[in-house]
Amino acid sequence: MPELRQDPATKQWVIMATERAKRPHDFKKPSQPEPLPAHKADCPFCPGNEKMTPPETLAYRQGGPPNSPGWWVRVVPNKFSALVPEGSLTRREEEGLFRKMDGVGQHEVIIETPHHNQGLALMEDKQVEEVLLAYRERYLTLRENPRFKLIIIFKNHGLAAGTSLDHPHSQLVATPIVPLNIRHRFEKAAGHLDDDGTCVYCDIIREGLRVRQRIVMETERFVIFHPFASRAPFETWILPKEHQASFGSISMNDAKEFAKVLKTTLFQLYQGLNNPAYNYIVHTAPIKDEHEDYFHWHLQILPRLVTPAGFELGTGIFINTALPEETAAFIRNLSA
Amino acid sequence: MPELRQDPATKQWVIMATERAKRPHDFKKPSQPEPLPAHKADCPFCPGNEKMTPPETLAYRQGGPPNSPGWWVRVVPNKFSALVPEGSLTRREEEGLFRKMDGVGQHEVIIETPHHNQGLALMEDKQVEEVLLAYRERYLTLRENPRFKLIIIFKNHGLAAGTSLDHPHSQLVATPIVPLNIRHRFEKAAGHLDDDGTCVYCDIIREGLRVRQRIVMETERFVIFHPFASRAPFETWILPKEHQASFGSISMNDAKEFAKVLKTTLFQLYQGLNNPAYNYIVHTAPIKDEHEDYFHWHLQILPRLVTPAGFELGTGIFINTALPEETAAFIRNLSA
Repeated sequence: MPELRQDPATKQWVIMATERAKRPHDFKKPSQPEPLPAHKADCPFCPGNEKMTPPETLAYRQGGPPNSPGWWVRVVPNKFSALVPEGSLTRREEEGLFRKMDGVGQHEVIIETPHHNQGLALMEDKQVEEVLLAYRERYLTLRENPRFKLIIIFKNHGLAAGTSLDHPHSQLVATPIVPLNIRHRFEKAAGHLDDDGTCVYCDIIREGLRVRQRIVMETERFVIFHPFASRAPFETWILPKEHQASFGSISMNDAKEFAKVLKTTLFQLYQGLNNPAYNYIVHTAPIKDEHEDYFHWHLQILPRLVTPAGFELGTGIFINTALPEETAAFIRNLSA
Repeated sequence: MPELRQDPATKQWVIMATERAKRPHDFKKPSQPEPLPAHKADCPFCPGNEKMTPPETLAYRQGGPPNSPGWWVRVVPNKFSALVPEGSLTRREEEGLFRKMDGVGQHEVIIETPHHNQGLALMEDKQVEEVLLAYRERYLTLRENPRFKLIIIFKNHGLAAGTSLDHPHSQLVATPIVPLNIRHRFEKAAGHLDDDGTCVYCDIIREGLRVRQRIVMETERFVIFHPFASRAPFETWILPKEHQASFGSISMNDAKEFAKVLKTTLFQLYQGLNNPAYNYIVHTAPIKDEHEDYFHWHLQILPRLVTPAGFELGTGIFINTALPEETAAFIRNLSA
């Protein structure tokens, strides 16, 4: 019998379609990942091609002028920005019923490494840490702009995850509105605080650690698990154990530990599923609520092993063909 | 400058990324669609293989016993149902915080034709009409089950749209809950009725017909257009011009005209984009609200020409690289 499960944080239901269930190892890609070159002459993110991107907003390098080689992490505005800093925040009525506004915001690319072929899963921990410090530094800079309400950091890895460039990179978008779906997430979490007096993510961590079957890893400051109402096989969340609303509040020390667990988690997926396509997103509180009790920042990884179809698009209900208890056990066994 | 547009019905924002805009013809698939055989020996939906599916719940055939060849439309329970009719509707607390319930519902497959290779876009109008009459008949039967709150009809065409079987088919799911995303859609529409005293979809039709630039086709009883806040290139909506909350209320006569416009619309996309993958979904009022004023049934077609990535998954905001005014003109020019 299929089972409906509700995400305690968003109240979204997921269908666990046990009738069509697959075993965790069935999701492994059949072929070995194709090797990429370490440097590609026409890649805008490879060293030496700095002129192919807009001028950098941040780079970690030892000496040398901006927009030249020698960096190990580099941040640039997205050449094809979905949102741009100029423009007005006024909502305009167009043709009576229809409302539009300028696409105001900031859209940046974090180039994670000078090496074309070195994904996060295969980097040194130290390099992953530098990437996370770049996230943090850009967050802290952009939060000062009063036009921005929310900062979204995400990564698309692989063709099935919607990326068009192989060179490892993540993206950051600062938005002048809180997107509806994210507002619902905040509202549900605030409702939980109203009703139960606790942060729903703190509760999820506590319950998860008590039951343990969906936990993949636990360190001093972080917990990594496959959520109860996983929307897709191998969905993975990483949360700081201690309550912290905003990713922007992460300490340098915690960033070091976060880098270690992120790298380990991505390496496990790489190894267990043969370099799957995935998206990850850092969910964090709106800028004005960085010190509130209701939200708890976390990173969600969604491997793109199956294609959402009409039912998912139309209803928002995902159909998942793998139980998180089983996928979590599969990952635990890998590392054992 | 990119532009944010708001869907007046759902209040969802879409980013029109003009900086990375493509021309409508850029979305055309480069290759001709691969021909499929008219009959495939191991296809569970081909005539002669009726025993490979669960027993039919409806078939249009001239004589002959059930579950034998001779049908032209056939409806069967999904062999790998996401939801099943048995089970309890009680929500259970599992492990304290986590809530689950049995996957109660009904999940059926509408086999649209005995011919393995004859998609809706290439069928006779009459055959499309028979498919829509099968939708209607199953809707009217399943609505009588007091456990069901909503009936969702959808279609996945092509690999990129998440289908695993080539033989033309659509699906129907009756659910014991109203999915959160769909409830928001209903709530926003009800809010519009409260505020403005009108059905928001009637307003969209009126405004759309006044402005005309996004209209693809207009018939006596239907209007077909690319919506103002299209989430993807070539998103297409078909609405009955006269207010009607539920697809289940469609008359036999209107079904005939609906078949004609659906077929024409799909053929235009087939021709203009070289048989693109797409999903469509029939959005209809909850069963208990079939005669209310706030909702207006419609069919949404979402071609799957681009892959939603981390930003879309995380925020629910789609980034669209084609303006609906331009894609609508492209389709109008095709048929001219």
